[in-house]
Amino acid sequence: MRARNKPWADDFLKENDDIVIHQPFEYKEKWHQLFQNDQPIHLEIGTGKGQFISGMAQQYPEVNFVGIELAKSIIVSTVQKVKDSKQPNVRLVNENAKDLREMFGENEIDKIYLNFSDPWPKNKHEKRRLTYRTFLEQYRHILKPDGEIVMKTDNKGLFEYSLVSFSQFGLILEEVVLDLHALEDPTNVKTEYEEKFSSKGMTINRCKARF
Amino acid sequence: MRARNKPWADDFLKENDDIVIHQPFEYKEKWHQLFQNDQPIHLEIGTGKGQFISGMAQQYPEVNFVGIELAKSIIVSTVQKVKDSKQPNVRLVNENAKDLREMFGENEIDKIYLNFSDPWPKNKHEKRRLTYRTFLEQYRHILKPDGEIVMKTDNKGLFEYSLVSFSQFGLILEEVVLDLHALEDPTNVKTEYEEKFSSKGMTINRCKARF
Repeated sequence: MRARNKPWADDFLKENDDIVIHQPFEYKEKWHQLFQNDQPIHLEIGTGKGQFISGMAQQYPEVNFVGIELAKSIIVSTVQKVKDSKQPNVRLVNENAKDLREMFGENEIDKIYLNFSDPWPKNKHEKRRLTYRTFLEQYRHILKPDGEIVMKTDNKGLFEYSLVSFSQFGLILEEVVLDLHALEDPTNVKTEYEEKFSSKGMTINRCKARF
Repeated sequence: MRARNKPWADDFLKENDDIVIHQPFEYKEKWHQLFQNDQPIHLEIGTGKGQFISGMAQQYPEVNFVGIELAKSIIVSTVQKVKDSKQPNVRLVNENAKDLREMFGENEIDKIYLNFSDPWPKNKHEKRRLTYRTFLEQYRHILKPDGEIVMKTDNKGLFEYSLVSFSQFGLILEEVVLDLHALEDPTNVKTEYEEKFSSKGMTINRCKARF
């Protein structure tokens, strides 16, 4: 997802340091302390403009949400949404974690969301896909033993790849949905991207998998 | 698949007992003897009118094919195709095996094809789906340890169900394809059903899984 450079973004993120965590590595194994409760922690990798994480946080106040988004000019929209809705259960990170294990301790996370991740369709870029095995190793470490990965994408190639990658890594599929919006799942919170593309008639795929 | 009753079918199947195996249970652990060679044996469960098994047998003369089809009025078309093309590597069975283990020995089969199986969409009919776990138990027994299940279907519900069922049973997915004909796989042999429905623009799903 691309957005115009926003020169004010740095200041905006600094000002909102109740929502944006600027030193996320210092909170490894301490995220529950940060939230000041023992609620489960769900992690979204790639929040985009934040419609999903913000909607989820409203729907599930009994869950803490952490969102990571690398693009500064995009994460500002998420920060604004969380700020406007005064949600106490969201923290956001604008940091390129080489390895999520630097940011989260073993078993610290209850669920991971991968929403419309970059498909990296060329074979030579396989390692960049968020469902490549080196990422699955990280997820396995930071997720609780019964923790779940929930993935949504409109990209058939990425979905096909991910199902095979999950299976070969030893994950067990709990759900596969090839046309999510035909299901009319009232608990499904749409991302901006999802809303736009499903309204154009593109099918959205979802799967849930456990280690 | 429905077809008109064909009163001549019984006689036709009897006449062609070089192709149609009338006592298949007697060949348990003896299918290689029947084919008089050591070629791998691939099993199609539900041949329909036989375009797939007949096409495969031509494409892979180094493989033996066994096809099971319950509907007498349909299997006659398969018999006719095999007869016309004089393929020595196909045998057909018109028998309702309660359990495939009565018909095939342990590790006797190298590959199983499930093509456009009845989706049995109602939950109460789950046990009739050919990818329900009681069937997977049978497949595991008769397949060689590295044997493969290859499934094709246009039915999204059955495909979703089967991927989860495979995974939960411990099968490893080797391939998932959500739009087979977009792939333009030259080795893909189409069934009659597949040809008809893909020409109408319906997407065909395929997966390959191993125990």
